[in-house]
Amino acid sequence: MNEYVYINEVGPRDGLQNQKTILDIDSRTELIHQLIKAGIPGIEIGSFVSPKAVPAMAGTDEIVKSLENIKNCDLSVLIPNMKGYELACDAGAKIISVVPSATETMNQKNINMSLEETIKNSCKILQAAKADNLCTRAYVSVAWECPYEGLVDSNQVLEIAYKLIDSGADEIILADTIGAANPAGVSKLVKQCVDQFGADQLSAHFHDTRAMALSNVCAALYEGIRKFDACIAGLGGCPFAPGAAGNLATEDICNMLEQMGYQTNIDLNKLNSIVDFCAEKLDANVGGRMTPWLRKTN
Amino acid sequence: MNEYVYINEVGPRDGLQNQKTILDIDSRTELIHQLIKAGIPGIEIGSFVSPKAVPAMAGTDEIVKSLENIKNCDLSVLIPNMKGYELACDAGAKIISVVPSATETMNQKNINMSLEETIKNSCKILQAAKADNLCTRAYVSVAWECPYEGLVDSNQVLEIAYKLIDSGADEIILADTIGAANPAGVSKLVKQCVDQFGADQLSAHFHDTRAMALSNVCAALYEGIRKFDACIAGLGGCPFAPGAAGNLATEDICNMLEQMGYQTNIDLNKLNSIVDFCAEKLDANVGGRMTPWLRKTN
Repeated sequence: MNEYVYINEVGPRDGLQNQKTILDIDSRTELIHQLIKAGIPGIEIGSFVSPKAVPAMAGTDEIVKSLENIKNCDLSVLIPNMKGYELACDAGAKIISVVPSATETMNQKNINMSLEETIKNSCKILQAAKADNLCTRAYVSVAWECPYEGLVDSNQVLEIAYKLIDSGADEIILADTIGAANPAGVSKLVKQCVDQFGADQLSAHFHDTRAMALSNVCAALYEGIRKFDACIAGLGGCPFAPGAAGNLATEDICNMLEQMGYQTNIDLNKLNSIVDFCAEKLDANVGGRMTPWLRKTN
Repeated sequence: MNEYVYINEVGPRDGLQNQKTILDIDSRTELIHQLIKAGIPGIEIGSFVSPKAVPAMAGTDEIVKSLENIKNCDLSVLIPNMKGYELACDAGAKIISVVPSATETMNQKNINMSLEETIKNSCKILQAAKADNLCTRAYVSVAWECPYEGLVDSNQVLEIAYKLIDSGADEIILADTIGAANPAGVSKLVKQCVDQFGADQLSAHFHDTRAMALSNVCAALYEGIRKFDACIAGLGGCPFAPGAAGNLATEDICNMLEQMGYQTNIDLNKLNSIVDFCAEKLDANVGGRMTPWLRKTN
């Protein structure tokens, strides 16, 4: 054991984008600085979507600029299309992420594009980014289950991942976007992907809707994955169930990994202070699944 | 897959014994009948502790008597000492459980007896029960971590388990009483126990204090365990954190097992109705970790 596991924090993007309370740019920047100080090695700091569509992400360009001198953390931004890519470049982004979904219907409903168009679009962005010497991350969204099409064929996910890597994705993130994956399904798909691409090029992103996020992390760990997304305070998830169906909480996965003997180099006490910061700024009862009094007395 | 996993429900004992609201005997019996109707194959229906010490368990003898004709569910009772054993026999109990702790300090603090005395006491009860042709279950409490002594030596647990089996325990239940075990520790101890005693004679009991209960179930599943305790609505746990640190919820483990392709023969919709029944009777916001709106719309 004592193996290193890399945590990529998605709170400033996936966690904040759907909150009732929209944080101002100073608060978002402060959150990112606190996460860096806690030792998080990678953070998705925002997205270049239309501020009309997602007001909570307005001003991501300013945040990118203000963090240009950060050297000890991989700061990435989410890119929906070529226009977003150009804006990200103008702001000075160094790592970009694309997020195609694995099914026809999810892409149609989500962004009004066919699966084929979405993949082509993502590949174009990846190619441009590699030409510009940026680092690239490519999600495969709804990799296990789609809210419209149900269970997703793992071969479909592999085919998409292959195209994304072929177009320059440095890393593929298998994403259980709706929190419907189970450990058996995770083992199966992850094993196939590890066999095909190697564990180093893979990461996983779980939501806790059905309380299986940590179990899914374990299943992926057993198959060799050593990179995971997580979201401080378990923010995000479904607006119908506030606080109950968010992303996998950073404090929960870090605690589990540490207990299991893995190394994250992340300060759990600092994470707990950041949970308090989020609760105060969002004026909401936020936090992962770990019993709150354990957090407080740690 | 499609392998069968046996769930032993501990709600009527472990779940109810520490609630603010004490349920009357009719409500406790109604809860047990509903659990049986949902297809639960085993239920710990109460304990023969002093009603002065644990008022919520008063009248367990009446409950045992009223359920004497139940044939399709293994109904067990918890026995703290020989006096409790005699009362259980008088009531007609057919399956009894003993619950020694694995460490010196836990036994001292909990029941004011040394570890050696506690094990001897449990062994005597098991021997008496086998002589009386009863079925027997033996917990090893704080099998991974003790609140007083910290991490527990797995060899200590094996030695205790060996003595209990030698005295007639049909089944050993490895119990993470304070919810401090992690999947790596679970794998290690369970593997040792399976190597020594075989998986058929073993079961596991997890609490969700640190959100790792389902991950621990997975770790035990991988080592061959096919019997687990669980507690409807995640009742129980630490009174300092109501609703947040209970037992592993029956509805959560059953949902995960079903999603993973295991067979429990338990009706998830009926479990959800029982969660509602508990919420109403206890006048509390109870339920497992799964997002509540998922439960409601299933």
